[in-house]
Amino acid sequence: MTIVDLHPLDPATAEEIQAATDTIKKLFAPVQLHFKAAGLDEPPKKELVAYLEAEHKGFPRPKLPRRVFLIWYIKKAPRLFEAVVDVTNGKIDKHEELPRDFHGPVDRTELNEAAEVVMANPDVENEFKRLGLEKSSVVLDPWDYGVDGIDTQARMTQVFLYMKNPKNNDKDSSHYSFPLDFMVLVDLCTMKVTKIVRLPLGPDESTTEGKAVSLQDTDPAEPEYAHHLQKNPPRTTMKPYNVVQPEGASFTVKGHLIEWEKWRFRVGFNWREGITLHDLHFMDRSTFYRLSLSEMFVPYGDPRGPIYRKGAFDLGNVGAGVTANNLQLGCDCLGTIKYISGHVVAADGTPAPRPNAICIHEIDSGIQWKHTNHRTGKAVVVRKRQLVLQQIITVANYEYIFAWIFDQSGEISFETRATGILSTQPIDKDSKVPWGTRVADGVMAPYHQHLFNVRIDPAIDGHKNSFVYSDSVQMPWDEKLNPLGTGYVTKESTVNRAGPVEDSLYDGRVFKIVNPSVENPVSQTPTGYKLVPIRSQLLLAQPGSWHWRRSEFAESPMWVTKYKDRQLFPAGDYTNQSLGGHGIKSWVKDRDYVVDDDIVIWHTFGFTHNPRVEDFPIMPAEIAQFHLKPYNFCQYNPTNDVPPSSQAFNKSTLYEDTKTNGANGKSETENKPNGENGENGTSCCSKD
Amino acid sequence: MTIVDLHPLDPATAEEIQAATDTIKKLFAPVQLHFKAAGLDEPPKKELVAYLEAEHKGFPRPKLPRRVFLIWYIKKAPRLFEAVVDVTNGKIDKHEELPRDFHGPVDRTELNEAAEVVMANPDVENEFKRLGLEKSSVVLDPWDYGVDGIDTQARMTQVFLYMKNPKNNDKDSSHYSFPLDFMVLVDLCTMKVTKIVRLPLGPDESTTEGKAVSLQDTDPAEPEYAHHLQKNPPRTTMKPYNVVQPEGASFTVKGHLIEWEKWRFRVGFNWREGITLHDLHFMDRSTFYRLSLSEMFVPYGDPRGPIYRKGAFDLGNVGAGVTANNLQLGCDCLGTIKYISGHVVAADGTPAPRPNAICIHEIDSGIQWKHTNHRTGKAVVVRKRQLVLQQIITVANYEYIFAWIFDQSGEISFETRATGILSTQPIDKDSKVPWGTRVADGVMAPYHQHLFNVRIDPAIDGHKNSFVYSDSVQMPWDEKLNPLGTGYVTKESTVNRAGPVEDSLYDGRVFKIVNPSVENPVSQTPTGYKLVPIRSQLLLAQPGSWHWRRSEFAESPMWVTKYKDRQLFPAGDYTNQSLGGHGIKSWVKDRDYVVDDDIVIWHTFGFTHNPRVEDFPIMPAEIAQFHLKPYNFCQYNPTNDVPPSSQAFNKSTLYEDTKTNGANGKSETENKPNGENGENGTSCCSKD
Repeated sequence: MTIVDLHPLDPATAEEIQAATDTIKKLFAPVQLHFKAAGLDEPPKKELVAYLEAEHKGFPRPKLPRRVFLIWYIKKAPRLFEAVVDVTNGKIDKHEELPRDFHGPVDRTELNEAAEVVMANPDVENEFKRLGLEKSSVVLDPWDYGVDGIDTQARMTQVFLYMKNPKNNDKDSSHYSFPLDFMVLVDLCTMKVTKIVRLPLGPDESTTEGKAVSLQDTDPAEPEYAHHLQKNPPRTTMKPYNVVQPEGASFTVKGHLIEWEKWRFRVGFNWREGITLHDLHFMDRSTFYRLSLSEMFVPYGDPRGPIYRKGAFDLGNVGAGVTANNLQLGCDCLGTIKYISGHVVAADGTPAPRPNAICIHEIDSGIQWKHTNHRTGKAVVVRKRQLVLQQIITVANYEYIFAWIFDQSGEISFETRATGILSTQPIDKDSKVPWGTRVADGVMAPYHQHLFNVRIDPAIDGHKNSFVYSDSVQMPWDEKLNPLGTGYVTKESTVNRAGPVEDSLYDGRVFKIVNPSVENPVSQTPTGYKLVPIRSQLLLAQPGSWHWRRSEFAESPMWVTKYKDRQLFPAGDYTNQSLGGHGIKSWVKDRDYVVDDDIVIWHTFGFTHNPRVEDFPIMPAEIAQFHLKPYNFCQYNPTNDVPPSSQAFNKSTLYEDTKTNGANGKSETENKPNGENGENGTSCCSKD
Repeated sequence: MTIVDLHPLDPATAEEIQAATDTIKKLFAPVQLHFKAAGLDEPPKKELVAYLEAEHKGFPRPKLPRRVFLIWYIKKAPRLFEAVVDVTNGKIDKHEELPRDFHGPVDRTELNEAAEVVMANPDVENEFKRLGLEKSSVVLDPWDYGVDGIDTQARMTQVFLYMKNPKNNDKDSSHYSFPLDFMVLVDLCTMKVTKIVRLPLGPDESTTEGKAVSLQDTDPAEPEYAHHLQKNPPRTTMKPYNVVQPEGASFTVKGHLIEWEKWRFRVGFNWREGITLHDLHFMDRSTFYRLSLSEMFVPYGDPRGPIYRKGAFDLGNVGAGVTANNLQLGCDCLGTIKYISGHVVAADGTPAPRPNAICIHEIDSGIQWKHTNHRTGKAVVVRKRQLVLQQIITVANYEYIFAWIFDQSGEISFETRATGILSTQPIDKDSKVPWGTRVADGVMAPYHQHLFNVRIDPAIDGHKNSFVYSDSVQMPWDEKLNPLGTGYVTKESTVNRAGPVEDSLYDGRVFKIVNPSVENPVSQTPTGYKLVPIRSQLLLAQPGSWHWRRSEFAESPMWVTKYKDRQLFPAGDYTNQSLGGHGIKSWVKDRDYVVDDDIVIWHTFGFTHNPRVEDFPIMPAEIAQFHLKPYNFCQYNPTNDVPPSSQAFNKSTLYEDTKTNGANGKSETENKPNGENGENGTSCCSKD
């Protein structure tokens, strides 16, 4: 496919990435470069809006150049650059070197190299000797470094060490079950070990220097998650559950354009955000311009060094596109699946494929609506069909599953699931800590938080919207107006100025994005969408701490800003070893006026994760969902015309008719599948 | 099945209900009785615990008599009685007449009779004439009366009136789209109309007496939900989605005993609570003794008479068993379905069947856990299979779907979905109100709240538990202990005394039910379950209002009580036209000590429902779920041994392979279903 056939929102192709890195390499030759990131540089909103309007109206579309954004280092030097390359016209639109306090994302290439350096280091070898370990049993987890305020210009990695299960020494052993009591700091420029740090093993701030955790004492009840390594075989009680779509899926995918059940939108993909959603229309009306997970932060609560540096920005530090899993048919999703692949960049500038990074499929989510008229017994049921776009990222020990879920009701939900493996530390067998959980003898999982921010660029019936919140408040007693004290009303406030917006559970606060210029003729109120937030505990780290300074978005559940091109990442464009000050808090300093304007909403949510034993050796997913729901947007229920649920369509089966259930004995229940007209409803299937 | 074969927790059978009412009828003969309720009277906990212990240990079981609880009136008299009849031994264990301020539940028989009385009343006929209506187009919705403090001893119904869609006059027309401007009060003892009340039609407390809403002005964009009556035909874009379980279900049902994926429990059913769950064991260990939805309250926010009386206790006033839908194969649930039926009582004392009141089936809820070892590319995925027990109730205009959801992870969730039809009132075409939404010309849907309470009787590893809450709190800055200000710890508090328990979102409060005498050997903390609440706005009605006095439980998100037999319903045993004072607030007056004891937890949650246009003419379900999750109960992840997810088991299909997708054009994506080992994972299916 030639570049001229691409939509301005299509992800950067392999060819474009190659062309862009070639352009930069040519510029720097013969100096060797280490590429960190490459992806579509989306057109300025003004240009893109004009393009999209033409597209929707069927007019000739403006020709927009395709651009690729790049980040690179001069190899083995602390010199970081970014550029925007116009690959349509073969020119460089933007090119700058970043100040020395800015650090690029980490990447697997350099972290692997750092791991090798660690393994070859003689002081590290001595530590292995101390612990009585063979090198071949050791596994390394190099991490982004975090910040402690000491020498913020060195680009570092902090390498945590583990060993394979001594009982099997298997390459897929869950090494997190066997943490070692020291870690290693490596300078990523010089590729040299700078320090070896013993981890604290006791109940408080004292390390127990010289006192190794006896590795024989580390004996988890079940240290493995890979089934062939577990002590017990898998259970055999679970019977297959297949989703069959005999007429195929209800969605269509043409390139990156998706249409499903009155929804029409484009899906993008880039190295940092993974999935991005664009130009979302419902029932041929504009709802949202752009939706994405914009950042996440996972700060740890063990106050002791070196753990006090553990706080990962998994999007900015490494990238949700870079770490996207290759989703496999039948493993990660059920039913009729469409995969979309993408590309990121390898260290040498060649495009690195991310096959099957996004999966698309439908799910049935139970009943959408039902009513039975008790007078006639007629029941009408309609089911809740949804469309899921999902990606899974692996960031060292953890996995995150991010899903955008569309509903026939005009609702969009964003779901995050945290799974994978807890980050573990060694601990004396006899100690406990108030900031972590014993998950096995000798193994402690420290408390931490998962804080996410989703960027919502609305376009409810147009690009000029307002952000409003509506509280439900008691009416005062009043002999005439509120004689029995039962009344309550809604009080609406429009957010005037950019900044954080407070929540209020007590007032049942509902957040709404409205178009003040478009009135719903039925409710006679502005058309809009409501945002049902995930009410979460916010950042626990002290104001003034590096965690606090660097995360910015984690201080408030909601923010509003006036739209500006390139304001995408609320903890700043460069989060790795960042010092803060370049994120959303600086954007709102001028308190821009945000009424009836092009605004952006930022929702922060998450969970405080104080691990439990059930999270070990691998964690059943912790799930959180927030919703965007039409609120006086439509003129009536948009799912009214979803066909009625019926047996002919759904083909369910009676338990009694399935072969395994013959031996279960007589049931005393009456089972009349095509039941008589009871008082409460005749067959809803009868006429349909 | 003879009575001697029943388990003490099996629901009252048809024969038992008949036997019980016959016993009472014999006692009162020849006085005619009007039965209101009949159901299993569960054995006293002391006896039942002894029985269950014997059952679990395989010892001979004590013989417990079967008892039926009854409520009845002397027909057409304000004399209300309750009794407990021992149907095993044919004797009456308890028999009392209730004071005159207590009123029994309403029932369809008497409400239908009241409706007929209304239709035959000459003053009502005059109102129809005033509105230019034929009687045959009118539909009545008799409601429980509520309380206004005036004559609390008369047993009343308040009847709201609507008409069928004038364009079709169909028996299944959604009459709620066409509310009439008056309502009628009927005395249920004398069966006489006592008053006709004109509804307020304007923007405030003034009624507009004599000014009828012009029924020609009432013209909703789409007033109907029944598909054959809608203006537009159903969409044809939605393709079938079948759940096929080729080897049957993973659950077994023997009578009312259910076993599934390490869960074992009994399901009960009664006229009031609908589904009840008993004796829940996970991995052969006791978790909960009894779980049920204990009450719900739906107060309205329009402060004006007569709406100020609208506040329905749908369980106590009418009953979730009484109103249970007859669930139909293929309509309400998907997959392999087991139905359980039950019985309530008819007014004449005969058993009234509730066929297919409960459906049981599995669902797939996405990924339970996953990890990819980036070094080897090996991905291990396990799916989240759940078991759902569901019932649907229809209470006049509204439907509620209640589901108990079991998870292989040991988690239990309770989900409520509100759907059905908004309660509507007429409104002047030109008016708006601050306590309601215009959902169509001439139709207003008043604000209201849905408040639920779930009763949780825990038995975590035994009957003596404590209720604890755990807050995550910042550590103060400290040069030695918290040098970078990143630390946080958990602070646990045990609830000492019965009463309401506050929530704290700010502190990320987690509620836990623990057994202080049983220590988890891994975490070295008491075994327990955590309750993840639904954080909700609580009752908005003023303290001192009838809504407030009657609901009691709606004041606090959480309550603890010391277990006492028969303390089941937190707004009192008799909620219809109740005056309050007999619910949970009186139970906690003595502030019983609740540490390491037989305790009960009560969780109040809900949503403030300020209708939107999309909720009309029928409402897409509003969903809320809370969770009970093992918290340091197990020794490691209880889903470790769930078999790995694989294509052989799941049988998903590629979008490109389905016949409808041939015409969609070439996709630029790379689709490699058995992908190469990318950096991020090889096929998780390969070995399994």
